[in-house]
Amino acid sequence: MAASRARRGWRSRVIDHTHDAAASSWVEGVDEHPDFPVQNLPLGVFSREGETRRIGSAIGDYVVDLTGLAEAGLLPDALCPALSEQTLNALFRLDAATRRALRHALFAVLTDPARQRAVVPWLYPAQSVELHLPFAIGDYSDFYVGIHHATNIGKLFRPDNPLLPNYKHVPIGYHGRASSIRVSGAPVIRPKGQIKPQNADHPTYAPCRRLDYELELGIWIAGDHALGETIPIADAWDRIAGVCLLNDWSARDIQAWEYQPLGPFLSKSFLTTISPWVITAQALAPFRVAQPARPEGDPAPLPHLWDAQDQAQGTLSIALSATLASAAMRGNGMAALELSRGTAHEAMYWTPAQIVTHHASNGCDLHTGDLLGTGTLSGPAPGSEGSLMEISQGGQHPVLLPSGEQRCFLEDGDELTLHARAMREGYRAIGFGPCRGIVEQAR
Amino acid sequence: MAASRARRGWRSRVIDHTHDAAASSWVEGVDEHPDFPVQNLPLGVFSREGETRRIGSAIGDYVVDLTGLAEAGLLPDALCPALSEQTLNALFRLDAATRRALRHALFAVLTDPARQRAVVPWLYPAQSVELHLPFAIGDYSDFYVGIHHATNIGKLFRPDNPLLPNYKHVPIGYHGRASSIRVSGAPVIRPKGQIKPQNADHPTYAPCRRLDYELELGIWIAGDHALGETIPIADAWDRIAGVCLLNDWSARDIQAWEYQPLGPFLSKSFLTTISPWVITAQALAPFRVAQPARPEGDPAPLPHLWDAQDQAQGTLSIALSATLASAAMRGNGMAALELSRGTAHEAMYWTPAQIVTHHASNGCDLHTGDLLGTGTLSGPAPGSEGSLMEISQGGQHPVLLPSGEQRCFLEDGDELTLHARAMREGYRAIGFGPCRGIVEQAR
Repeated sequence: MAASRARRGWRSRVIDHTHDAAASSWVEGVDEHPDFPVQNLPLGVFSREGETRRIGSAIGDYVVDLTGLAEAGLLPDALCPALSEQTLNALFRLDAATRRALRHALFAVLTDPARQRAVVPWLYPAQSVELHLPFAIGDYSDFYVGIHHATNIGKLFRPDNPLLPNYKHVPIGYHGRASSIRVSGAPVIRPKGQIKPQNADHPTYAPCRRLDYELELGIWIAGDHALGETIPIADAWDRIAGVCLLNDWSARDIQAWEYQPLGPFLSKSFLTTISPWVITAQALAPFRVAQPARPEGDPAPLPHLWDAQDQAQGTLSIALSATLASAAMRGNGMAALELSRGTAHEAMYWTPAQIVTHHASNGCDLHTGDLLGTGTLSGPAPGSEGSLMEISQGGQHPVLLPSGEQRCFLEDGDELTLHARAMREGYRAIGFGPCRGIVEQAR
Repeated sequence: MAASRARRGWRSRVIDHTHDAAASSWVEGVDEHPDFPVQNLPLGVFSREGETRRIGSAIGDYVVDLTGLAEAGLLPDALCPALSEQTLNALFRLDAATRRALRHALFAVLTDPARQRAVVPWLYPAQSVELHLPFAIGDYSDFYVGIHHATNIGKLFRPDNPLLPNYKHVPIGYHGRASSIRVSGAPVIRPKGQIKPQNADHPTYAPCRRLDYELELGIWIAGDHALGETIPIADAWDRIAGVCLLNDWSARDIQAWEYQPLGPFLSKSFLTTISPWVITAQALAPFRVAQPARPEGDPAPLPHLWDAQDQAQGTLSIALSATLASAAMRGNGMAALELSRGTAHEAMYWTPAQIVTHHASNGCDLHTGDLLGTGTLSGPAPGSEGSLMEISQGGQHPVLLPSGEQRCFLEDGDELTLHARAMREGYRAIGFGPCRGIVEQAR
């Protein structure tokens, strides 16, 4: 096992031996796995055919059964009740030290060859299990912290003045629909809704014609606080369980007609897809990097949203991309086309801590299993836009697919996949696993 | 017992002997009770000091313990499992016929003097119990179907063109925050938030100075449907468990600064107060009346939102009012001042069935215990406005209180109470019980 090196930083940012790039697992193929080396150890909920849900972690191409390991006495006793649940909610209500103990114990059993014989019965091929929502989600909120996305969308409506006056003061967000969140792989049934073309006198109720994706990260909340209390920004990372990919599928034509004056509603609530593994705050500790300096002339955040440590290590070095494979492309064995590539770090004007602190700044109670979307994370450069609305500039400039097809928006049969990898020099990159959906025709 | 008269109408609208105005209960004072005669029989969740939550109904000034009645064999056996839960969710997942059987059985035991001795041990003075949220609330959405409210608010921004073009086509709504919903009596802690006065260069983070109420009804959902399915309007009432009062407390100054472009967020999520008793769809059956004719020139609803039966008996004859008592008024023993008085029937441009059908029209899955606010139900006439924003015309025209105080918005110590009574000639009026909150200073 690699030498331990604990550098204690801002709240909950502990970098220790579990992040050592040289650490190696006895599990076959893990050290070369793009997403799930032993430095990752994401948490999730799975089931084997015909069995109830259990808590697991992804290790290479396997899922390790944490409920089983706990029952077998291979994990700390204090974790056993929480690991016998069918969601992660109880686990993430435990204090951070207890959760860290889980990471350390799991790292130990997966790196120590002497434990192999005891652990192997609890390793299942990932393809043999079904993944489920990791949490019972209380509330879902979606933010708008991708400043280049906000600028790109704003330009479509206000070319000279794309960002609204509040944008650089308020981490803009709104309430979303929790019930329609599903894990990667869930079908994307094209929604129907009220649509009013610009030249029509009246709307019609019809299948969406401008179906889009939005490349986002989701922030999972750990712990609970009472209504009326707030979360000081220095404590905000202690309330972050981890991160996932999030596709905020969007019906642009429904949205355009419905969204005034109260915001998007049915244009979003038909489905939100997430990647099923929770990349824990602990796993992400080495990938917390400095927030890019605010451009000269930008207002300073208000004091309750400002923390020097947050500026120094508050944002995430995560590479993001989206790929598209039409039915014709898949039928012809063509590789998916990369629609966009960027980083969370360059896209986010507000940090996860600022998002969490802002959300609770009016006394709103946040609870374990709440999900906070970042909003679309488009980068500053062409080729890093996180939605087709931006890529096609409002449907004006179609993308040419390798099959010869064109796309301004998604067609039935299209498979859209989001990808994320936390990367930083000196550390082993860790992946999120795919966040995927195939569009099905409207019912 | 009064003669049975069953008139079967549109889905779930069964008027029978439990609605007979002449029906009388042996429980003391019930026949004269303004809110909870035996024709009402609302459902809720209560606890006695130091005990767990149980399911109950309000009868006059008493709460009858349905969990206890079920245990004692006084209610149909099929209801026992659902009545042993600590929320109404399991009960409202049962089919409508089984739920109707509960109403009939409860009506029977409370009207038949021969059952008095068996039932009395399960009657508790209402003042001796604590009331709780009736459902575990999955998702909360808030609508904007009060056309006079939308017009009044619109006039403050666009005097010549107050209603947006989509208003008469789309039952406008947005997602709300479920975690911060509380029952009547919960303290209203003045929220803090970002506020930017018009003449200031930058916002500040400060206590809200324009705290308002919004007089709404809440619609509780019964039953579940799968993602991707819709709810035909003819079936929508089968998905309505019942109705409550809802105060959508609003921080107008926070709202003004944050709401572009994604809608209200922290200006609403600090608290939503509801009346704790679910006035069931069955109890409301006689009070379903014809929708007022759309003004000439208004567009017809799209076919999926149109149903002749819904027009004929789809809206609710419910009288609504809001009263205010400042701390000084209460200290001097003064009665609360009625701020406004109107009816749901005159206020709602869209019916409950249209709201439910629209919400699911994109395939969004609705579940038992979801809550749908109507939006502020202001009437067409002066004196029927459902918020201080309207009454004071944006803070320009203060209300004079009997204490000599003035109010444009709510001050610390103010007690704001909403009231509702379903009324219709030939039927015994039924009340909702109060929806009340006292404003506390910001923390």
